[in-house]
Parts: sequence; C-alpha cells; structure tokens
Amino acid sequence: MPDISKLLSAKSVAVVGASPDNKRLRGILFEVLCRGDYAGRIYPVTPSHDEVMGHKAYKTVADIPETVDLAVLAIPANAVVAELERCGAAGVKAAAIVTSGFAEQAGSEGEAMQRDLSAVIAKYDMAVTGPNSLGFVNFAEELSPTFSPAIARASLPLLPEWHEEGGRVAVIAQSGAIGFGIYDRGRLREIPFRYVITTGNEAGLRAFDIVDYLLDDGETEVFVLFLEDIRDGAQFRRVAAKALAAGKPILAVKIGRSEAAQESAASHTGAMVGSDRVNRAVMEAHGVTICEDLDQLVDYTAAFYHNRTKLPRGRRIGISAGTGGGGGWIADQCDVFGLEVPVLDDAARKVIDAVLPEYGSSRNPVDGTAQAIGDIGNAALAHMTSQAENIDATIMICSARAAYRFEKERDSFLHLGRDGDKPTVTWTYTWPTQETIAFFASAGIPLFTDTANAAGALAALATYRE
Amino acid sequence: MPDISKLLSAKSVAVVGASPDNKRLRGILFEVLCRGDYAGRIYPVTPSHDEVMGHKAYKTVADIPETVDLAVLAIPANAVVAELERCGAAGVKAAAIVTSGFAEQAGSEGEAMQRDLSAVIAKYDMAVTGPNSLGFVNFAEELSPTFSPAIARASLPLLPEWHEEGGRVAVIAQSGAIGFGIYDRGRLREIPFRYVITTGNEAGLRAFDIVDYLLDDGETEVFVLFLEDIRDGAQFRRVAAKALAAGKPILAVKIGRSEAAQESAASHTGAMVGSDRVNRAVMEAHGVTICEDLDQLVDYTAAFYHNRTKLPRGRRIGISAGTGGGGGWIADQCDVFGLEVPVLDDAARKVIDAVLPEYGSSRNPVDGTAQAIGDIGNAALAHMTSQAENIDATIMICSARAAYRFEKERDSFLHLGRDGDKPTVTWTYTWPTQETIAFFASAGIPLFTDTANAAGALAALATYRE
Repeated sequence: MPDISKLLSAKSVAVVGASPDNKRLRGILFEVLCRGDYAGRIYPVTPSHDEVMGHKAYKTVADIPETVDLAVLAIPANAVVAELERCGAAGVKAAAIVTSGFAEQAGSEGEAMQRDLSAVIAKYDMAVTGPNSLGFVNFAEELSPTFSPAIARASLPLLPEWHEEGGRVAVIAQSGAIGFGIYDRGRLREIPFRYVITTGNEAGLRAFDIVDYLLDDGETEVFVLFLEDIRDGAQFRRVAAKALAAGKPILAVKIGRSEAAQESAASHTGAMVGSDRVNRAVMEAHGVTICEDLDQLVDYTAAFYHNRTKLPRGRRIGISAGTGGGGGWIADQCDVFGLEVPVLDDAARKVIDAVLPEYGSSRNPVDGTAQAIGDIGNAALAHMTSQAENIDATIMICSARAAYRFEKERDSFLHLGRDGDKPTVTWTYTWPTQETIAFFASAGIPLFTDTANAAGALAALATYRE
Repeated sequence: MPDISKLLSAKSVAVVGASPDNKRLRGILFEVLCRGDYAGRIYPVTPSHDEVMGHKAYKTVADIPETVDLAVLAIPANAVVAELERCGAAGVKAAAIVTSGFAEQAGSEGEAMQRDLSAVIAKYDMAVTGPNSLGFVNFAEELSPTFSPAIARASLPLLPEWHEEGGRVAVIAQSGAIGFGIYDRGRLREIPFRYVITTGNEAGLRAFDIVDYLLDDGETEVFVLFLEDIRDGAQFRRVAAKALAAGKPILAVKIGRSEAAQESAASHTGAMVGSDRVNRAVMEAHGVTICEDLDQLVDYTAAFYHNRTKLPRGRRIGISAGTGGGGGWIADQCDVFGLEVPVLDDAARKVIDAVLPEYGSSRNPVDGTAQAIGDIGNAALAHMTSQAENIDATIMICSARAAYRFEKERDSFLHLGRDGDKPTVTWTYTWPTQETIAFFASAGIPLFTDTANAAGALAALATYRE
C-alpha cells in the first residue's frame, strides 16, 4: 500500500498544467490552491509560462529543486500516462489526476490508457486519486487541489467559525460533483469537514483504501461515502468492521439500483456495478447507514456527528413543540420509521404541567402552544421532555427563522445539547438562517428542515447502536 | 353559506384587542396589518388607548363610524363569545379569531365555549376562521391580519419580484404554524402565493368551504392543504371533484396516521380524526396529491404551478447532466418512483453526439461532462434531451450555486421552460442562491435540491394527468 500521507498531507505540490487563466479549470485549480493558508510549497509546471500567479514555473517536474510529495495532473488525457511515469521516475510518491477521458467510456482508447496508468501507479507504488476526479481538500491543512465551484466560489469560510477543534467529518466520493455537493450542502448546515476526497475512476486508490488510512490516522469521526461501485468486497468488509469496532460511523449513498444508473456508472467511472440488493444487504450488515437522498445524507451526518457519543438507548421519542400541528406531523414520521411516541411518565408530566397554559398538552407530543412557548423556552421544554424516564431521545420543534429568539436561551441550549446522555435533534417549520444553524450546531444540536429526516436520523442512530 | 369575500377581501377591518406594544402578539398583528399597501380602512378597537400606531382607536366595534367587513379578534378566550355576538349584532359579517383555549382541549370549558361560538357564527351567518389560528394573508390585496413571524419578520418581499401576474397558489391549513411555514419555505422557492389561510379549530369555516369559494373565485391555480381532520367527507368529495374538473390541482398533507398524532390533533384543534387509511384512499381517488414532508409539499407545489398546463403524457424521463454520478443517482430515484429512463431515440442521440466530447454519453442519463457542459450549455443539452420522441419529461441536473453561469443562457432557459409542451424540472447538487432560484422560476422551471422530489414530482404530475 502506498503512503497516502504523501497525498493528503503533502508538504509540497507540483501542479502540472497550471495556467494563469482563471477562467479555465486548471487556472481555477491553481488559484484555489494558492489562495488559502497552506503552509507547504507550491510549484506550477508548464512549458508555456515563466511564472503563474506569482509562483516561478518549471518546465517539468524533474526541474523542481526538491522532490515534491504530490503532483496534481491537469493536462490532456493522452499526456497523462507519460507525465505520471516522469513523476514516478523523479521520486514523486503521490498524484491527484483530474483529467477525464479514461475508462469512463467502455471499449475506448481511454480504457486502454487507464490500464497503462494503473501499471505506472503500481510500478512506483504511488498514492493516486483519479483520473476523472475533482481532486481533494484537506481542510485542516488548507491543501485544496480542486477546481470545484463549491470551494472556488464558496460563500462561507471553509470551516464553521463556531467550531474549535478542527473538522471531524471526511467525505470520500467516486463522483467529484457529488462529493463537493455534499460539502456544499453540509457546510451550510455547519458540519465541520476535515476532508473531501474524490476518487473518480480509481485507477490507483479506492475509496476504502482511504477510509482505512483515515481510520489509522484517527482524526476523522464520521465517514460520508458516495459510491457507484464497491470494487473489492473483501476489503469493504474488513474496513467496515474496523470502523464499527472504532465507533466511527460510516454513512453511504450507493447508487446503481436501476439499469440506467448502472449503465451510467459504467460509462462514467468505468465501474462494474455489483448486484445492488446484495451490496446494500452487506453494507447494512456491517453497520453502514445507507442514505438515498443528498439532504438525508447531510442531515444524518449532522445527527451522527453531534450524537456519536450519546446514541439513543432505545426507540422511544419525546416531542416538544410550540405548535400542535407540527407535533402531530413529527409523531406521524416517528411512526413511519418504527419509533414510539409514548405518553410521558407521570413525573415528567407533572413538571411540564406546572409551566403549561391550560390549553397546552404534556402527553407527548408536548405542546407548549404558540402563545406560551416564548415564556417557557424551547430548550427548557425540550429538556423537561427529555427527562422522562420512558424517553430515549427528543425532537424539539420550533421556528428557527431568527437566532435572536434563542440567544437568551443560550445556556439552556448548551445544557440540552452538550450535557446529559440523551440525544436531541430539532425540526424547524420555517427556513433557518445561517446564524441560527450555527447557533444550534455550536450547542451540539442538529437542526433539520426535512420532516422525515428528523425522525429518520434518530432511527438510524438507534439502529447503529444496536 | 356566509359571504367569504367579506373575510378574505374585506374593505375594512377592526382589530379587537389591538395593542401599541409590538412585543406582544396582538401588537405584532396590528403592526403587520398596517405595514403593507392595504387599500382598505383599519380600526383598532381597545378600551385602553385613544390611538394605536397612528390609528384612532374605538372602545367597541359599534363605535366605529362604518360597519366593517371584518373583525379580527385578539382577546382572551373568555371574552371571545360575547365580543363576536357584539360584532354580529353590529352587522359585521366576517371574523378571524386568533385566540386559543377552545376545543383544542377535550372536555374543557373551552370546548363548551367553542360550541357557543359556533352558535353565534350560525346566528349571524358569519364567515369566521379560528379560533386557535394565526389569521390569514391575502397577498394580492396586502390584507394581512396575522402575527406569524414568517410574515412579521419576512426576509424577502412577500411576493416574488420576477412575477408579473400576481400569486396563484393558495395555502389553507388547520395549523397556523405549519400554514405559514409552508409560505416561508415556498417563498424562498419563489412560489407566488395568493393566500395563506389558517382555519384552526374551525368553529365556523372549514378548509373545504374555503377551497370551494376560491374555486368559484377563479384566481387560484394550485391549492396546498395541511389537514389534521376532514370534518365533512361528502363536502370533501364534492369540492375535490369540482377542483379536478377545473384542472386545479390540490396537494395535501394529512396528518394523523399515528396514535400520537391523533391524540395531538384532538388536543390541538379539537378534531375527530378519521381512519387515516380510508381518508388517504378517498383523497387519492379524488385526484389529491398526498405529500408526507414539508419540503416535498413545497417542491411538488412548484412542479404543479409551473407545469399545470403541460402535464407529462407518460412516465419516460430524460436526464441531462454535467456529472455522471448525479445522472446515475437521479436515474435510481426515477426507478423508485416507477418512472422509466429509456435509451434516447437515435435521432436525439445523433444531435447530442455532435456536441459531446468523446468521453460523454448520449444514452440517458445524458452526460455532458464537467469539462464540456459549460460550452454546450445546461439548457441546450436539456432541450436536446427533451426533444427525443420517447421522452415525456426531462430532469436537468446542474450546480446552481451561482446565477451568473445561467445568465448567458437566459434565452435557452426561457425556451426550455416556457415553450414546448413537455415539462422540465431541475435538480442541483450544490445549494442554490435566491437569485438562481428566481432565475429558474422566472423561466418556468422548478429547481429542486431534494434528490427524491425531482423524480417524485414528475411521477405525481403523471399520476395527476391520468
């Protein structure tokens, strides 16, 4: 196995095909790489320019005054194999190949080129992602060889500002667009990412090679995968078992259930897609949480990230709300996902009844009513609900349109989210602002907008614990 | 049947309980009502003040120098019956009662008060929403007696700026919070609403009374309902049949499948919830599209609004994309919803192959590739896909992070969305900006972020046509 740290934590990077034209993808890639606070050295390699964006350029990788850790290849497909051979000969141990035009078209010249590429990778024992990928980002080290618009045109700082400890969530995707799409959506939900790594056609490294490495590395707490194909079933089972033993959840989308998707995967990343039903059954048996939808994947990731150390002990859900209609709706969704919504025990009801108006309800869903919820406090009511002996997890329903409503309750929210050993998630019926999402995330409470995901995520947590 | 126009298109409004304190709900309500460009007359009624926010105040409704069309009651529960009697005696023909504390608690004093309230309503044949509601908004006339934060603290103009013809979508909800939650989410998706009407406990008007009235009125094209209970099955069947005959789609969430939700509904709006399974079967048989999730409801509403005059003739879907991974994922979702993704016919493939790079695919999903989609154009590729003889509707996949990418394609988008007789919807794997959503909406193309809803909405359109 090659040394993946040379790829993901490279101390020096050569960009072959770097361009000063930031309208072109390889110009965007170079600009993005230079923009952050990456502490390593960056070398553009191009025959056409003496310097690129202020960096002295070299004609070939061999001309660079040091042996770089990583070569990023952004050059035409028919030049890639020879260039990687040159890199290997120069002692470069890792490469990210973003170029398309390889095995994604079956029976093509590109398929043959990819075989040659794999041979070069094996010959020099290199750590290589791609071809046909969008590169990767190591957020902790601000190493970002990618032209993804989600990074190039990010509207927010790459890591959440509320977050102290550095990213803990790694995305590994066989599709570049979707991999960075997960980041884009997840960042808006204030998920702290550590890596987005897109593996494309996987001529070298496969998704589970990288999961295996990151498990050893120990800095990643939650893994998010987008898979068109599981190329090595035995490896998958070994790595998934290792993740389960380490208590590091894996969430995955596995496409390929339909014939059209299978054809698409074959013509897209050169994947041979296995029987979808078998794949899913094996994944679930190994503790992988399978998601179908992009927002579901992001929501469940937030739920696992915030609650990984306090998984629910059962499936009994308390619901607290300032709206009866919302409470009933979430109760329905709990039913869909096999969760129970029991009447709260007498002790908890007594505590709640003491603060409720006459027309509220302490049964479950607990209805603080629109008129009184402001006085009682959203977090306080959710906490009272969660304290019932016969409750394993709580869904708080609120309108998260404006953060100012919650600021005065900050201590209650911190108490609810960070103390105690029962998970809380929230569902908002209005659309939240970025400020509100950050407020909830900083309190350790995931905020959902999707009705089904609020219940579904708790069911997934309970299943994972089992 | 009372005259509902006195309620929804009132030319004059008395707010009983109006307060100058805009920290209190009835102060917020009065402020919201006064804020817009409502052309009618507004009268605060309160014994405590001579004027409220610049409007001369009256001690009672009878003191107002005209017989107002509408009285808004924002006073304590035990004063409501007497006040409504006073209004009725003064000739007021409509009321919106926001006060809680009535039949939402079974066996309570409030339940008895609600019976008295219904008797007063019947005595004077008044058009009344509530009690226990959040009032309503008539967006076309800017009549907005509500304290909902979705209106009071709206972050956008109440109607989309791109929209010329006035709102065409009516929300009618038995839960106030959810009714305005639908508006809040839908406005962000640039849906042009005409009404949000919350009916609460329905001591007077029921949801389908209002649907019936709006069908006669003719200005509403799409109905969105949130129901805890269908109180009159015969009326439902008659009104649903009338909507179907008029080609006006009804989308509905019907809660109450779980025991907890049924208990919640009983204690919340005083509803007797019928058998959920029977209710749903009857609704579907009458052409109602049943939704489970809030975002699904909003997404399907956008799909019906934009495509109500060009429903798909079948279930054969073309998918165009600049990402193979996204194409495969959406193809999977089509499979889930019983849609087909056939290989495009030869004529269409020939047109597409002429513009594709060698490593793209014209099969279906059509993959324009990340490298080439910018040159081909998203709308152009979707249009070529939609032109296949064996395609009934198209899903375009793109990254809608930034509107500037699409501006240069504006004509192609208008052509795709507004001309032709096949529907197109889009799915974006990155999160769109408000500007991009408005761009797509102005072209008549709904933009989805949810993977399942993109396929599910087309399936719902096909089912509705059938």
